[in-house]
Amino acid sequence: MMFEQLGLIGCGLMGSSFALAMKRAGLVKRVIGYSKSPTTTQKALAMGIIDVEAPSALLAVSGADLVLVSVPVAATEAVLKSIYHIVGAKALVMDVGSTKQDVVKAARGALKEKMGCFVPCHPIAGKELSGVEHADEHLYKGRKVILTPTERTMTVQLNAATQLWTALGCQVQNMSPAAHDAAYAVVSHLPHMLAFALMNSILAQDDSQEYLSLAGTGFRDFTRIAASEPKMWSDIMMTNKDELLAQSKAFRRSLHAMEVLIQTGQQDALHDLIQKASQSRANWRMNDKK
Amino acid sequence: MMFEQLGLIGCGLMGSSFALAMKRAGLVKRVIGYSKSPTTTQKALAMGIIDVEAPSALLAVSGADLVLVSVPVAATEAVLKSIYHIVGAKALVMDVGSTKQDVVKAARGALKEKMGCFVPCHPIAGKELSGVEHADEHLYKGRKVILTPTERTMTVQLNAATQLWTALGCQVQNMSPAAHDAAYAVVSHLPHMLAFALMNSILAQDDSQEYLSLAGTGFRDFTRIAASEPKMWSDIMMTNKDELLAQSKAFRRSLHAMEVLIQTGQQDALHDLIQKASQSRANWRMNDKK
Repeated sequence: MMFEQLGLIGCGLMGSSFALAMKRAGLVKRVIGYSKSPTTTQKALAMGIIDVEAPSALLAVSGADLVLVSVPVAATEAVLKSIYHIVGAKALVMDVGSTKQDVVKAARGALKEKMGCFVPCHPIAGKELSGVEHADEHLYKGRKVILTPTERTMTVQLNAATQLWTALGCQVQNMSPAAHDAAYAVVSHLPHMLAFALMNSILAQDDSQEYLSLAGTGFRDFTRIAASEPKMWSDIMMTNKDELLAQSKAFRRSLHAMEVLIQTGQQDALHDLIQKASQSRANWRMNDKK
Repeated sequence: MMFEQLGLIGCGLMGSSFALAMKRAGLVKRVIGYSKSPTTTQKALAMGIIDVEAPSALLAVSGADLVLVSVPVAATEAVLKSIYHIVGAKALVMDVGSTKQDVVKAARGALKEKMGCFVPCHPIAGKELSGVEHADEHLYKGRKVILTPTERTMTVQLNAATQLWTALGCQVQNMSPAAHDAAYAVVSHLPHMLAFALMNSILAQDDSQEYLSLAGTGFRDFTRIAASEPKMWSDIMMTNKDELLAQSKAFRRSLHAMEVLIQTGQQDALHDLIQKASQSRANWRMNDKK
């Protein structure tokens, strides 16, 4: 499997890392890149991530047999609309968005009869550092990639996407868009929300800088994701609103249960709650096969 | 500065790592160890962490010019009471507990006129893995150590403690016990509580195992501290109850503010909140000097 030309729309961390990985794996001959910010595209060119700068998403896609849309999820519909006329009937079009129901909906509206070309993807990879300057050819290696094909996704494109990600060292797993969004509200979107909320809770206090200067490795790891990109994450949270709010509510119940035990001095029951959490986390392994 | 004999009470992760570090740095000649569990003491002996097993805390302390109490904070008072009669007037006695007001109170009651020997310490170091088998001579290196001396702490002991931790590669900082407990409720105790609560919130759901199998690196780092030791952490939470509950409440307000913005579709305001959190976290560096 070798692609002639990758049309890369969005040259941020995810898109640039994908282009690099594809090139290093010898899976693509040419990368034409477009980014909303010309500075970003120029950096990507200078770093050898793309071979040609395109002045628009449309021109990046022209002639491409592989298209990757790697933009904040709320921008997906506009991008797909803008490339609709030029996408080849045999091209494989993928995204890397962290929510999938909205992306599928956007794709249906934008790609119409070409919807079959589109394979919605969510690689479970990322960093708290964003931007082309943090592009990393190994970003995807060993990570899960969730595909959420629709009833109109063509088998040939689904198979090609599966082969491509597998060739990049990923574990591919298929899910429905709804199941995907429910699961990632729990294990990704809510943790990000909690990390942001903790930082803001600290910053609202008079002694916040003193407090932050005293923090250690537990805090460092717990809040790493709080440094994530604001546009990307406000998009995700709005997009997956219902699932996220339901999970936030469930979380508050769980937190409140601990507060009550602390308040009323029920140390044994508190110990048991902590033990349950601790054992489960100690036994958890990332990327365990289901 | 060289100590003749360290009396180590509690041979878990913190105590064992301290004994190892002291030995490797050539700061102590002999370590006499006691643990509630004989299995632990035997392991510590077999691993060369202690030189002699003591059958009681009292006997571990006999003849020691340095005593380290490294037990769950709620056990501190009983330990100090049990060694009171045998502690030498010139010995340096330290603990490594994560809360300090309760430890100081316990020490006043237990050590009486020998209270001047006691320097309450909190090394900002640890792992989610507990027990002597994870002892690590480098655990403390490069970390902060907070000392919370009282008005009765003798200068000579405070200086000795400062020199000792500095010799182990730590940055020593003095605080009042109350300021310590307020600060660590924010940057350590609350994050642990949130991590435990998140795990329990997930475990209460029907699809919890499916969800957990899909989690990636963000979840991994965010929940690392949820694997921490239940006895140690239920103790800390009960002990620092007032500060912790106040911080939990402040956190819930911060979370609720985000929920409202999501619910009402105020994306720009949500973006600004996330940006504030993100910039602050991106600029944070561990162990920045104040």
